Amino acid sequence: MRAFSSTLNKKKIKIKMCPQPNDSISIELQQLQLDADGRNERTQWLLNSPEPLSFCNKLINSVSETILQKETIFFPSNSKQCKAGIFSFLQGLFPILSWGRNYKANMFKNDLLAGLTLASLCIPQSIGYANLANLEPQYGLYTSVVPPLIYAVMGSSRELAIGPVAVVSLLLSAMVTEIVDPAVDPIAYTSLVFTVTFFAGTFQAAFGLLRLGFLVDFLSHAAIVGFMGGAAIIIGLQQLKGLIGISHFTNKTDVVSVLRAVFRSFHDEALSPMNFILGCSFLIFILVTRFIGKRNKKLFWLPAIAPLLSVIVATLMVYLTKADQHGVKIVKHFKGGLNPSSAHQLQFNGSHLGQVAKIGLICGLVALTEAIAVGRSFASMKGYHLDGNKEMVAIGFMNIVGSLTSCYTATGSFSRTAVNFSAGCETVVSNIVMAITVFISLELLTKLLYYTPLAILASVILSALPGLIDINEAYHIWKVDKMDFLVCIGAFFGVLFVSVEIGLLIAVGISFARIILDTIRASTEVQGRLPGTLDTFCDITQYPGSTSTSGILIIRINSGSLCFANSTSIRERVMKLVTHTNGNDEENTKENVHFVVLDMSNVMSVDTSGIVMIEELHRELVSQSIQLTIANPRLRVINKMKTAKCFDKLGKGWIFLTIGDAVDACLSLKIADPSSTNC
Amino acid sequence: MRAFSSTLNKKKIKIKMCPQPNDSISIELQQLQLDADGRNERTQWLLNSPEPLSFCNKLINSVSETILQKETIFFPSNSKQCKAGIFSFLQGLFPILSWGRNYKANMFKNDLLAGLTLASLCIPQSIGYANLANLEPQYGLYTSVVPPLIYAVMGSSRELAIGPVAVVSLLLSAMVTEIVDPAVDPIAYTSLVFTVTFFAGTFQAAFGLLRLGFLVDFLSHAAIVGFMGGAAIIIGLQQLKGLIGISHFTNKTDVVSVLRAVFRSFHDEALSPMNFILGCSFLIFILVTRFIGKRNKKLFWLPAIAPLLSVIVATLMVYLTKADQHGVKIVKHFKGGLNPSSAHQLQFNGSHLGQVAKIGLICGLVALTEAIAVGRSFASMKGYHLDGNKEMVAIGFMNIVGSLTSCYTATGSFSRTAVNFSAGCETVVSNIVMAITVFISLELLTKLLYYTPLAILASVILSALPGLIDINEAYHIWKVDKMDFLVCIGAFFGVLFVSVEIGLLIAVGISFARIILDTIRASTEVQGRLPGTLDTFCDITQYPGSTSTSGILIIRINSGSLCFANSTSIRERVMKLVTHTNGNDEENTKENVHFVVLDMSNVMSVDTSGIVMIEELHRELVSQSIQLTIANPRLRVINKMKTAKCFDKLGKGWIFLTIGDAVDACLSLKIADPSSTNC
Repeated sequence: MRAFSSTLNKKKIKIKMCPQPNDSISIELQQLQLDADGRNERTQWLLNSPEPLSFCNKLINSVSETILQKETIFFPSNSKQCKAGIFSFLQGLFPILSWGRNYKANMFKNDLLAGLTLASLCIPQSIGYANLANLEPQYGLYTSVVPPLIYAVMGSSRELAIGPVAVVSLLLSAMVTEIVDPAVDPIAYTSLVFTVTFFAGTFQAAFGLLRLGFLVDFLSHAAIVGFMGGAAIIIGLQQLKGLIGISHFTNKTDVVSVLRAVFRSFHDEALSPMNFILGCSFLIFILVTRFIGKRNKKLFWLPAIAPLLSVIVATLMVYLTKADQHGVKIVKHFKGGLNPSSAHQLQFNGSHLGQVAKIGLICGLVALTEAIAVGRSFASMKGYHLDGNKEMVAIGFMNIVGSLTSCYTATGSFSRTAVNFSAGCETVVSNIVMAITVFISLELLTKLLYYTPLAILASVILSALPGLIDINEAYHIWKVDKMDFLVCIGAFFGVLFVSVEIGLLIAVGISFARIILDTIRASTEVQGRLPGTLDTFCDITQYPGSTSTSGILIIRINSGSLCFANSTSIRERVMKLVTHTNGNDEENTKENVHFVVLDMSNVMSVDTSGIVMIEELHRELVSQSIQLTIANPRLRVINKMKTAKCFDKLGKGWIFLTIGDAVDACLSLKIADPSSTNC
Repeated sequence: MRAFSSTLNKKKIKIKMCPQPNDSISIELQQLQLDADGRNERTQWLLNSPEPLSFCNKLINSVSETILQKETIFFPSNSKQCKAGIFSFLQGLFPILSWGRNYKANMFKNDLLAGLTLASLCIPQSIGYANLANLEPQYGLYTSVVPPLIYAVMGSSRELAIGPVAVVSLLLSAMVTEIVDPAVDPIAYTSLVFTVTFFAGTFQAAFGLLRLGFLVDFLSHAAIVGFMGGAAIIIGLQQLKGLIGISHFTNKTDVVSVLRAVFRSFHDEALSPMNFILGCSFLIFILVTRFIGKRNKKLFWLPAIAPLLSVIVATLMVYLTKADQHGVKIVKHFKGGLNPSSAHQLQFNGSHLGQVAKIGLICGLVALTEAIAVGRSFASMKGYHLDGNKEMVAIGFMNIVGSLTSCYTATGSFSRTAVNFSAGCETVVSNIVMAITVFISLELLTKLLYYTPLAILASVILSALPGLIDINEAYHIWKVDKMDFLVCIGAFFGVLFVSVEIGLLIAVGISFARIILDTIRASTEVQGRLPGTLDTFCDITQYPGSTSTSGILIIRINSGSLCFANSTSIRERVMKLVTHTNGNDEENTKENVHFVVLDMSNVMSVDTSGIVMIEELHRELVSQSIQLTIANPRLRVINKMKTAKCFDKLGKGWIFLTIGDAVDACLSLKIADPSSTNC
C-alpha cells in the first residue's frame, strides 16, 4: 500500500511541475531542464554502481556456493546449541529422524498395503532385470532388499520405489559384456558388475556432496523421452531371447545385430514353440489386467500382482508337467538366503579399471537422472520439493553399500513408483515393507523359483515397457520445439542403431550445440515506443503498433552474452539496420539516422571481443556522423567496460540508464541545436 | 520533434486525468480503472502478437539468409537491367572494377613507393618462411608472386600485404612432417604441401560462398593473442637451427623437444661459431634500424629495407670470403625463373587424403583468421568495413590458384601489412608492385641467393617475431576478463608444450565451454522500482537506491535461454528468494510475499524443459498461496508458451507486458480485496 500511494504522489508531483499549460515553450524548456537533471542523476547511479568483488573473492564465493550449503555451516557457541546443531545436521542426512517422530499407525496401514503390492510387482521384475543384466536371478532380488532399506533411512522422496530398473540393467549388460563375456566367465563378469556399482555409487555420492546436482540436468527432458523410447525397444528385442527360447544370442544391443541373431537362430536352432505360447499367453493376461486396472481405479492391485501371479502359475505348470524336459527353458540356477557379502569381489587393480570407472560414471548418471526425474514429478504432484543434491548422496550411499552386499546398481523405478503412488503409500516405509517381503520370499520361495520359465520373465519385462515409450510427449515436443525434437530423435535412433552410450552422447551433444548456436546466431531488434506509454520501448516486430522516433534508431542486442562468437555479426547487423533505415527512405520524407541507441539490458556478460566490438561500432558510426548511445548496461558489463576504459573512448555523456533517458537526451540535443546533429 | 511533443501531450493527458487532488480516494479508484484498461489493452497486444512462421518457412529463411546474400538475388526484366546486373555482380566479385575506374596517377606514386618497400621486406621474409616450412627457398618467393596478383583483383582490403606468413609456415611444417619427413623425401613433402594448400583454398572459398564467415570468429581475440605468442616462441626456437648451424634437428615443435635437440647438438655436432656471430650481428642491426624507424617516423623505410640489405651484405661477404667452406651454412638449392606449374603434383588418391584435408582445414582457418583480423583492424583505422565472406572467397581462390603454380598457403601478413600502411599505400596496387618486384628478383638474383647464409634468414624471421608477442594485450585481457585470459593462456601453453593444433583446440574448447557455463550458471536478480520513476524497475544490487514493493517479489531471469541446463537451478533460486524474503522478516514488520512477478524480458528462447519449469514453479508457488505473474515474455517465448498451452495452466490474466503493469495489477487486486491475498 505504501509503495502504491507513493506512486500516486509522484504522479501528483508531475502535475505540480507543469502548472500553466498555456505557456507551452517555457514549460518545454523547464521540463527539459528537469528531465536532464533526472537523467544525469540516473546516469551517475549507473556509472557509480557497486564495485565488483576482486577475482579471488569471486572465485572463493563461487566455490563455496557450489560446494557448501550456507545452512550447513555451523559454529556452535555452547553445548546446547551444539547438540541441536548436530541433531539438525543428522536430520538433514537422515530425513527419517524428522518424519519418523510424527509417524502414525494409520499411515503404517497404508504403507503396508502399498509395500505388499510393490513387492508382488518387484519380485518378478527383479528376476527379469537380473536376467537382462546377464546376472543370476537372485542378484535381482538381493538388489531389492538392501538398497531400499538404505534409501528409507537417507532418502527424502516419499514415493520412490527403489530396486533394479530396466534401463540400467541394459546399460550394464551392454557395456560390461564388452570387457568380459558372461557366457565365458560369469564369475569375473559378476565381480565387474559389483565394481561398476561401487563406482556408480561413489560418483553419485561425490556429485551430491560436491553439490553438482546440475549434472543430472544435462540429460534434458527431450533427451530422456527419446532415450527411454529407444531403450524400451532395445530391451523388448532382448526379450526375444527368452520368449522364443534362443540359446545363442548376440552380446550387442543395436536393432540390426539383434534381429540378425534372431533370424539366424530360426535357421540354426531347434526352437520349442512352447516357450513362445507360454510367454505370449501370460503377456496377454498381464496386459488385460492392466486394462481392467485402468478402467476401474479400485482394482489398482490387479495389474500389480498379475506378474507375480503369472510367475507362480507358470512355474507350477512347468513343475507339474515337467515341461522343462520338453524344451521349455527355465531359470535353474537360484541361490536363496540373505544377501552374501561381495566386498572381496570388488576389483580395483585390474587392467580395465579406467573402463569400469567410465561405465560406473555413465550408469550412475543415468540411474540418478531416472530417480530424480521420477522422484521430482511425483513430489510435485504432492506439492513438496526434492533436493537433488541430497538425493544424490542417498542414492550414492545406497549403491556403495549395495555393491558390498551382492547388489547391482539400483535406482528409482518409474513403473513401480507409479504403482506405489496409486497404492496410496504415505512414506518411504512402503519400501521397507517391500524389502522385508522380498527377503522373506528369498528365504522361502527359492525352490519354487528354480522352475520359473524364462519366457514368463520376458513377458513380465515386456509388459513394463509400454510405459517407457511416450509417443504423445514426443509429439508435444515436436510441436513446441523442433530443436528439442531433434535431441529426442537423435537419442532414440542413436540408442536403436548404434549403442546406448552413443545415443546419450548424441543427445547431450545436440543439446549443448544448441546453446552455442543460440549464442552465435544472436539477433538484434529495432525497438519502438509503445503507444500510450511514456518510456516503454518494445520490439516493433512483436508489437507492430509501437512507433519509432525520427532520426533515432533504437537497437536491442538479443543475446545474454556479447562475446567472440557473435560480436562481429551483431556489429554487421547494426550497420545493416542503419543503412537500411537510411536507404529505405527514398523520398526523403524522414530524417536520416543521427543517433543509434544500443539497448544492452539483455547482455549479461561481455568478453574482450565484445568490448572491442562496441568501440569499433562507435568508430564506424562516427565516420558516418552518427552518435552511438548506450542504454542500460548491466552491472557485470559496466564494470568490465570501466576496467577496459571503454567510456573514455565512447564519451561518458552517452551512457544512460534507460532507453527513455537516451532518447530524451538525443531529442533535447536536437532541439537545443538542430543544425549540429552531426555531433 | 513530433515524437517529443507527443510525449509532452501524453503528460498533459495524465494531468487532466486527475483534476481534483483533494478527493483522493475517488481519484485512486478512477485512476485504477484507467490503469486497468490500459493494462488489459497492452496484455491483449502481448497475447495477440504476430504468429510465428511455420517450421518449413523458418528453415528455408534461415538457410537462404545464411547462404544467399539478399543483394545478389537478381531477376532482370530487360536487357539493360540485365547488363547492369551482371556488371554489379562482377563488381562484387572483382572489386578492382569499381575502384580501378577512379585510380589516379598520384595514387600510383604512393602505391609504387609502398610496393617497393614491401618487396624489400618480403623477399628475405619469404625465403625465411619457406625455410621454416621445410621447403626450398624459391617456393617462398613464388608464393609472393601469384597470390598477391589474384588478391589484387578479387580482394577488397586496401592495405593487406599478401604472401607467406610465419604461423602458417610453422603449422604446415609441424603437421605435414608427421606424414612425410622432408629430409627423407622432399619431393613427396612438397607435393603434400601443395595439396594442403589446394584444400585450404577450397575450404576458404567454400566457407565464403556458403557465407560461413562466422567460423573465423571461433578463434576469439584472446585466443589469437595467446596462440600468436606461443607460435612466436616456437618459431623463434626453430630458428636456433639456422642461427647455430645445427644439421640434425627435431621435427617436433614443442619447447621440450626443441631444447633437447639443441642441447644434444651441442654435444654431438661440431658447430661453427661463425653462423651465430653472423646471425646475431645482423639481428642487432635490424633491431637498431627498427628502433630508429620508431623514433623518427620519416625513416619508416629504414627498418623495412634493413632485412634485404642484411641479406645482400651477408651474402656478398660469404661469397667474397668463401666462408661457406669454413662452416657457414648457406641456402645452396635455389631455382630461379617464373613459377612453374604444380598441377601434376597435387595428390588426391593417396592414403593420407583425410589427414591432408584436415591439415588444409586447420591451415585455411588459421590463415583466414589472421588475414581478416589484420585486414579489419587496418580497415577500421581508415573507416571502411571489410566483408568477411567476400574476403574468404578472395583468399580461397588465391590459394587454389597458388596451389597450381607452386605456391604454398598465403595469407595477409601482420608485419608487412603494417609496413605497407606506414609506407602510405593507397590501394592494393602496392601488392601488384611487390609481386612484380619479387618476380624480377627471381629472374635476376638467383645466382646471388645461392650464397645467402641460413643464419641471416633466421635473424630476419627472429626480428619479425616480437610483433607477434603482445604482453600488454595479454595483461589487458587479464584485467578485463579472467575467463578470456584462461583462453589466452590455454592457447599459449598448449602451443608451447604440446602442439599447435592442441593449442588451438584448447582455446576453442575453453571459449565454447564458457558459453555453456554462462548458460548453466544463469542467475536471477531481485528488481526494485527506481526512485523518481513511475515504472522503471532495476536490479537492486546494481542500484541500491531502488525500492521494493511490499508483498510483491519481482525476479528477473538473467539468461538469454531458459533451457534444460538452467531451468531447475532457476526454479530453485526463485523458491529460495521467496523463502529468504519471508524468512528474513523475523519481526513481522513487512507482509509476506503474495505475488511473484517473473520478468522474462531477457529470455530470448525457451525449450520444453523451460516451459515445464514455469508450470512447476506456478504449482509450487500456488501451494504456498503465492500468485505467479509473468512480465514481458518475448515473441519466441510467448509463441512457444501458446503452443504448449502453458497459459491455460497459469491463467491468461497473469501475463503482462511490463513489470509496471504486473505490479499495478497485483496492487489493485490487494486494494480491491485486501483479505484475499491468497488467490
